[in-house]
Amino acid sequence: MEQQGIKIAVFGGGSSYTPELIEGLLARRASIPLRELALVDIEAGRDKVETIAALTRRMLDQNGLQAVKVSVHYAPDEAIRGAQFVLTQLRVGRLAARAADERLGLKYGLIGQETTGVGGFAKALRTIPVLLDIARRVDALAPDAWIINFTNPAAIVTEAVQRHTRAKIIGLCNVPVAMHHMIAGMMEEPEEDVRLRFAGLNHMVWVHEVYVRGENRTQQVLEMLCNGAVMTMNNIQEMPWPAPLLRALGAIPCPYHRYFYLSREMLREEQEAARAQGTRAEQVMKVEEELFALYRDPALNHKPEQLSFRGGAFYSKVALELIDAIYNDRGAELVVNTANRGAIQGLPDDAVIETNCLVNGAGAHPLTFGALPASMHALTTQIKTYERLTIQAAVEGDTDAGLLALVTNPLVGDASVASALLDEVLTLNRDYLPQFNR
Amino acid sequence: MEQQGIKIAVFGGGSSYTPELIEGLLARRASIPLRELALVDIEAGRDKVETIAALTRRMLDQNGLQAVKVSVHYAPDEAIRGAQFVLTQLRVGRLAARAADERLGLKYGLIGQETTGVGGFAKALRTIPVLLDIARRVDALAPDAWIINFTNPAAIVTEAVQRHTRAKIIGLCNVPVAMHHMIAGMMEEPEEDVRLRFAGLNHMVWVHEVYVRGENRTQQVLEMLCNGAVMTMNNIQEMPWPAPLLRALGAIPCPYHRYFYLSREMLREEQEAARAQGTRAEQVMKVEEELFALYRDPALNHKPEQLSFRGGAFYSKVALELIDAIYNDRGAELVVNTANRGAIQGLPDDAVIETNCLVNGAGAHPLTFGALPASMHALTTQIKTYERLTIQAAVEGDTDAGLLALVTNPLVGDASVASALLDEVLTLNRDYLPQFNR
Amino acid sequence: MEQQGIKIAVFGGGSSYTPELIEGLLARRASIPLRELALVDIEAGRDKVETIAALTRRMLDQNGLQAVKVSVHYAPDEAIRGAQFVLTQLRVGRLAARAADERLGLKYGLIGQETTGVGGFAKALRTIPVLLDIARRVDALAPDAWIINFTNPAAIVTEAVQRHTRAKIIGLCNVPVAMHHMIAGMMEEPEEDVRLRFAGLNHMVWVHEVYVRGENRTQQVLEMLCNGAVMTMNNIQEMPWPAPLLRALGAIPCPYHRYFYLSREMLREEQEAARAQGTRAEQVMKVEEELFALYRDPALNHKPEQLSFRGGAFYSKVALELIDAIYNDRGAELVVNTANRGAIQGLPDDAVIETNCLVNGAGAHPLTFGALPASMHALTTQIKTYERLTIQAAVEGDTDAGLLALVTNPLVGDASVASALLDEVLTLNRDYLPQFNR
Amino acid sequence: MEQQGIKIAVFGGGSSYTPELIEGLLARRASIPLRELALVDIEAGRDKVETIAALTRRMLDQNGLQAVKVSVHYAPDEAIRGAQFVLTQLRVGRLAARAADERLGLKYGLIGQETTGVGGFAKALRTIPVLLDIARRVDALAPDAWIINFTNPAAIVTEAVQRHTRAKIIGLCNVPVAMHHMIAGMMEEPEEDVRLRFAGLNHMVWVHEVYVRGENRTQQVLEMLCNGAVMTMNNIQEMPWPAPLLRALGAIPCPYHRYFYLSREMLREEQEAARAQGTRAEQVMKVEEELFALYRDPALNHKPEQLSFRGGAFYSKVALELIDAIYNDRGAELVVNTANRGAIQGLPDDAVIETNCLVNGAGAHPLTFGALPASMHALTTQIKTYERLTIQAAVEGDTDAGLLALVTNPLVGDASVASALLDEVLTLNRDYLPQFNR
Repeated sequence: MEQQGIKIAVFGGGSSYTPELIEGLLARRASIPLRELALVDIEAGRDKVETIAALTRRMLDQNGLQAVKVSVHYAPDEAIRGAQFVLTQLRVGRLAARAADERLGLKYGLIGQETTGVGGFAKALRTIPVLLDIARRVDALAPDAWIINFTNPAAIVTEAVQRHTRAKIIGLCNVPVAMHHMIAGMMEEPEEDVRLRFAGLNHMVWVHEVYVRGENRTQQVLEMLCNGAVMTMNNIQEMPWPAPLLRALGAIPCPYHRYFYLSREMLREEQEAARAQGTRAEQVMKVEEELFALYRDPALNHKPEQLSFRGGAFYSKVALELIDAIYNDRGAELVVNTANRGAIQGLPDDAVIETNCLVNGAGAHPLTFGALPASMHALTTQIKTYERLTIQAAVEGDTDAGLLALVTNPLVGDASVASALLDEVLTLNRDYLPQFNR
Repeated sequence: MEQQGIKIAVFGGGSSYTPELIEGLLARRASIPLRELALVDIEAGRDKVETIAALTRRMLDQNGLQAVKVSVHYAPDEAIRGAQFVLTQLRVGRLAARAADERLGLKYGLIGQETTGVGGFAKALRTIPVLLDIARRVDALAPDAWIINFTNPAAIVTEAVQRHTRAKIIGLCNVPVAMHHMIAGMMEEPEEDVRLRFAGLNHMVWVHEVYVRGENRTQQVLEMLCNGAVMTMNNIQEMPWPAPLLRALGAIPCPYHRYFYLSREMLREEQEAARAQGTRAEQVMKVEEELFALYRDPALNHKPEQLSFRGGAFYSKVALELIDAIYNDRGAELVVNTANRGAIQGLPDDAVIETNCLVNGAGAHPLTFGALPASMHALTTQIKTYERLTIQAAVEGDTDAGLLALVTNPLVGDASVASALLDEVLTLNRDYLPQFNR
Repeated sequence: MEQQGIKIAVFGGGSSYTPELIEGLLARRASIPLRELALVDIEAGRDKVETIAALTRRMLDQNGLQAVKVSVHYAPDEAIRGAQFVLTQLRVGRLAARAADERLGLKYGLIGQETTGVGGFAKALRTIPVLLDIARRVDALAPDAWIINFTNPAAIVTEAVQRHTRAKIIGLCNVPVAMHHMIAGMMEEPEEDVRLRFAGLNHMVWVHEVYVRGENRTQQVLEMLCNGAVMTMNNIQEMPWPAPLLRALGAIPCPYHRYFYLSREMLREEQEAARAQGTRAEQVMKVEEELFALYRDPALNHKPEQLSFRGGAFYSKVALELIDAIYNDRGAELVVNTANRGAIQGLPDDAVIETNCLVNGAGAHPLTFGALPASMHALTTQIKTYERLTIQAAVEGDTDAGLLALVTNPLVGDASVASALLDEVLTLNRDYLPQFNR
Repeated sequence: MEQQGIKIAVFGGGSSYTPELIEGLLARRASIPLRELALVDIEAGRDKVETIAALTRRMLDQNGLQAVKVSVHYAPDEAIRGAQFVLTQLRVGRLAARAADERLGLKYGLIGQETTGVGGFAKALRTIPVLLDIARRVDALAPDAWIINFTNPAAIVTEAVQRHTRAKIIGLCNVPVAMHHMIAGMMEEPEEDVRLRFAGLNHMVWVHEVYVRGENRTQQVLEMLCNGAVMTMNNIQEMPWPAPLLRALGAIPCPYHRYFYLSREMLREEQEAARAQGTRAEQVMKVEEELFALYRDPALNHKPEQLSFRGGAFYSKVALELIDAIYNDRGAELVVNTANRGAIQGLPDDAVIETNCLVNGAGAHPLTFGALPASMHALTTQIKTYERLTIQAAVEGDTDAGLLALVTNPLVGDASVASALLDEVLTLNRDYLPQFNR
């Protein structure tokens, strides 16, 4: 890493989340010396990415970082060349496609959420070809660079890139760090004294053990949750866990597990919310408009408070801890999405999982976990199989794999419904699915 | 096998199916020389078992087998002593319990069928302790004898005995042989020229390959089914398979797969049938009454035609082929339920599976199959995990395992529903579940 | 299999073993109707193959099979076209190369035998390219034909073809059937009542269980061997097994296991025999000359007795049982060499093993075995790894793999010795190893 | 960890190595606050342990640690009670038994070294029962304490304790840290910038990758070694690695690998050294005498230079890094011996391996490694199987397992030799092997 300071390319640079990333970079500038920030977006997003670039410029200047370059790109190559890190946080089809997914789910009486069920499936089909293209450019132009992927469904997208390109990629999510924050808070312990043992898939991860200064306190946390302590994130409905389920599991599910364990109630809430306030995407569209109105204010030179309602808390924290661990060869223990390689028994070696890893300059090295308890193994196998069939469908334009993916997904299951859904997904997203129209 | 001829003990000897077994024994008497038939039942079933014993006597006499002893028992030991084979075809709680299971499913909007969903779960909890007791007596009194289990849910019951006793057991089902019959019929080929490759679980088995005289004809059969050929059994609703599903699977599901692949429609049919004619158990009760009315006729000395409507076609064929293969050390290829031992990749060695085995005097030896295709592996893992959690619940009276079993079963899934169902199952079946009341 | 009768191509048709094969074909002509026998050899072996062809003609005529065609070929294609079975029993470099291998081993104080140690290694390097060429022609010209391979080292050669071509191949050896014969003899039981359970590798296979009419008699056979019963084959030195070893193993090693378990004594015997009578190849050369002298006698129209001293007892028995099982779709239980696919735990799926298989028109289907006992698993892993590294060396001309193969082989082991041996093998066999001279 | 400072119990406290441990504790007193050091030995070693205790006292006093208690024990319980760490560095049968092992090896023309071959086998049989007793007392009296085992053969002893008791144990060796030191030295890089990726077994571990500040430099190190750079430890003969072997392996063997890869030469050296200077144990006896002469000097209050010739360089470094990581919940990356749990593919979960682990207050968590390259997997399987059979022999007094252990060990192999050796080992060590005399 011969050059002075690092260059970070951000695909989906026009995202409303970007100011949080900038704030994080400012906070860590001592250990992550920045040289250039390259924001990449599509032409149709020119207004947004220019707004973000200007705000970024003001935030850097305000902090005395006039020397750091901020560039805007509508094609990948110049952004990638010379980069050490490539962040991917894009949304193919933008929020309109997400809203259509949600409405499609509701039409069939199914959950349409953007990372699980039919919503996640449609988003994966749209996103994977775009990410594969980016990854292949990274491999060609900056083969030592790390792709840090936030794009949902993160497990599927990360695994697709990892299995179908030679680019180096790690997937990230704010769920583990948010759970860490909430569990430490519940226990009234300092976060740095609390160690959590995660193992599962992205948005399907459990905390299997809670340690405080070397002492196992898992049972205490479970009992607090059984007694009504609520631990959730502000974009997932705050439904308490049934105590019998928690006690039988002996582990702490993540908030997204509600889509699987409490699917009847979650569907009902989603249906009611859609009726009352619109689907989640429709709500987010409004929030985004408000945020960009703020961002355009030439006097704004810091991240506005309102961004915290958008749902991506801790986003910059996890991204920058990861960059720091790699760039500075730290050997830090972080929870990321990477290839299994035996960490969780009974999953393929190349299946991307979410678990505690030691991260250094050579990448992320999972700690061995062993076998998941039986019921978790079954659910994980089912979801991972759904994910891999979805990757096969997305990469090869394989409708058979697409049908089996939906049949395997517990939020769909029925083959007649799956068949009808698949037809609608392929029709609605025709513009984004060239792989199915060859 | 020093003694002259063999002794067969039949637990659930008062079953309406028994005459079919007798008919089969008569047909095979050259290769299976019979010495004694010991019918065992509970006191409450005295009338039925005595009726069956008398009919059996008449059928044997009519065929010149006056020397064969027919005995009736209300306790296991005398029946087991000296037996070479112990057939188990009993129903704990009789048809009334089955009807209650079905009604319970319908109350929650779920399939209550006796081998899948909550019906199978409740039946397993009732049945496993009884079968374990029988198996332990067999191990003590006739350790060389083979238990041949027909009692449903057959995979669960067989696996429980195999893992928790030292008795030798093989599980049987008429589905594979019925599929063989139907596929040969569709192809208009003689049954003996058609070889089917089965691998899966009981009531969850696929035909992966069809060979006719050494030639692979799988695609032809799939296309016939896609084009509307109906292949089903008379106790499963005859719903045709969606062609996209068959083509994507590339294998032939068994009739019971409809509960999983076409669950919405199957539930609707079950609800309508229950409304119109009563649940399956309620219908069977009527059939049984009619059958026993016939059986009581002292002039009857053969199996009456009406038994074929009861649903157990081929029952005696599979039982006697198995007895023949073991007793005569034949090395025959049969499809039975036995421990996996690596035959299907990714399942535990001691998981009971249904697949092609070479059967000789030393038992059933599965042919290796390799890995199931991805979507089938996921479904099989899920169902097998459900089955093993159910065994754990049944053997140890473990309500945590019971809850996780229902959460893992795709016909239940939702944890709130599972929790309510579990409570009702334990209450409704209190008399049959001593393991939960210790 | 539309044509009248079958065509068999025999590569290495000029082998002195061929008359045994013909005798077997004559004995089975009712179930294996022969149309043509195509003998293939190299130009340099013209005299031998013509001699064999003439003898074959006389044997067929003597038995009224004038209609069966006998053809001789010095190139593969015409022999392969139209064949249902292709037998490979060739020897690249002929006996002279084998003798050189044996002498090379002795030079380094090592066993040079043709299937184990450095002899087997050199033979594999010479043979694999030739077999791959044949197999690719079979795939191109007769894709439904089965290759039946006898060429040593049979496990290595068979695995190379199976992994590197699409041709269908099964490997055969006379060791299992010879052990069956000897064990039945020791027990004074009819062979057809004795079932043996084999699992291991070719020339490294154990009998794990002996059943007589369904009864486990393994301990009895072990005790007979501990008490001095000798069970061996006439080309392996008849050294009795140490009783402590047999009791600790609890299984019956094959005669070739002596090279591993009793390597000190075997080496001493090999050294002494070489001094006294010449190496095994040198002895065989003399036997071959005598046999061909007999074969040339125009009055000879049957297999001469003297062939039985050559060492290939039961060769035609196993070949013809296999052809019969495939051609007539028999579902017979035979012990052959085929891909593992989970049969023995802890070996790769595509590793060729030797074990009991059900054989029908679709090929050989191993019965699941489970895990080998610990010490056998370790030895099998070591030998199989040696074999796979040898295949890699032979296929890719990879000297690194060749060195690691010899280091892994327990009859070599030492890296300095391995390195020197490898150099000599590559030099001595230069004419047969184009893959190392690219 | 409520009490003020920690208590460390040292079994084999009278070892000549103990002063090195004390020196290390003095260096780390800021992070490892010591309360008590309990030295345990046998009555026969009273003179030595009293000498060590007195020297320890002087070393502590010299450094102002008068408050730290030093106690001497000839029975385990009082030493264990209240301890946080239990170090085991004992030698059952002392150096005399080791010398007898070495002489026994030489008698049969075999390597007799104390961790490999027949020497390691005999030492394991003597040591395991003693360590199991200590571990069971630790479990009973100080269940939260960690046993840190240095006793050789460390992999075998550690695995025996881990599988047969509930005590928490980690095995340590100075080989990995010595290799780290030597490789950094060869590259002229600061040790803290060099990361090595270890995976294998104790005294059978390879360095698979060398990273300097995140950059892969493995090839460079291999080429340096191929070109004659010598990397060894002062108790292993400094024989250079053959370049073809290093290139074929693509990894750096540890010094003890010479016993396996270069066994002919190592045996020759061992035979010559024994003739010239006596066996290694005989040499060490003299060194020990000289060391204890120094230790008895009441003026000595620091570790004498001469100890470094004894062979245990870095011993205290690795012990104290480990204690620090556990006691202070550091999350440090250390190379230790612990249960595999999937880290190296194809080994049992409970097999103790040597590899990079993240160590914190909850113990050692291996990083996943994946599959070893083929030849290393074979050797590791063979050695691990030898180790596990040895454990079985030692724990159960099972001579069958003992024989198979020696047959599986590549430094013995031949069954006749193994059988004779086993008899001699059991006779020579009769006093230490109660498990074989029940």
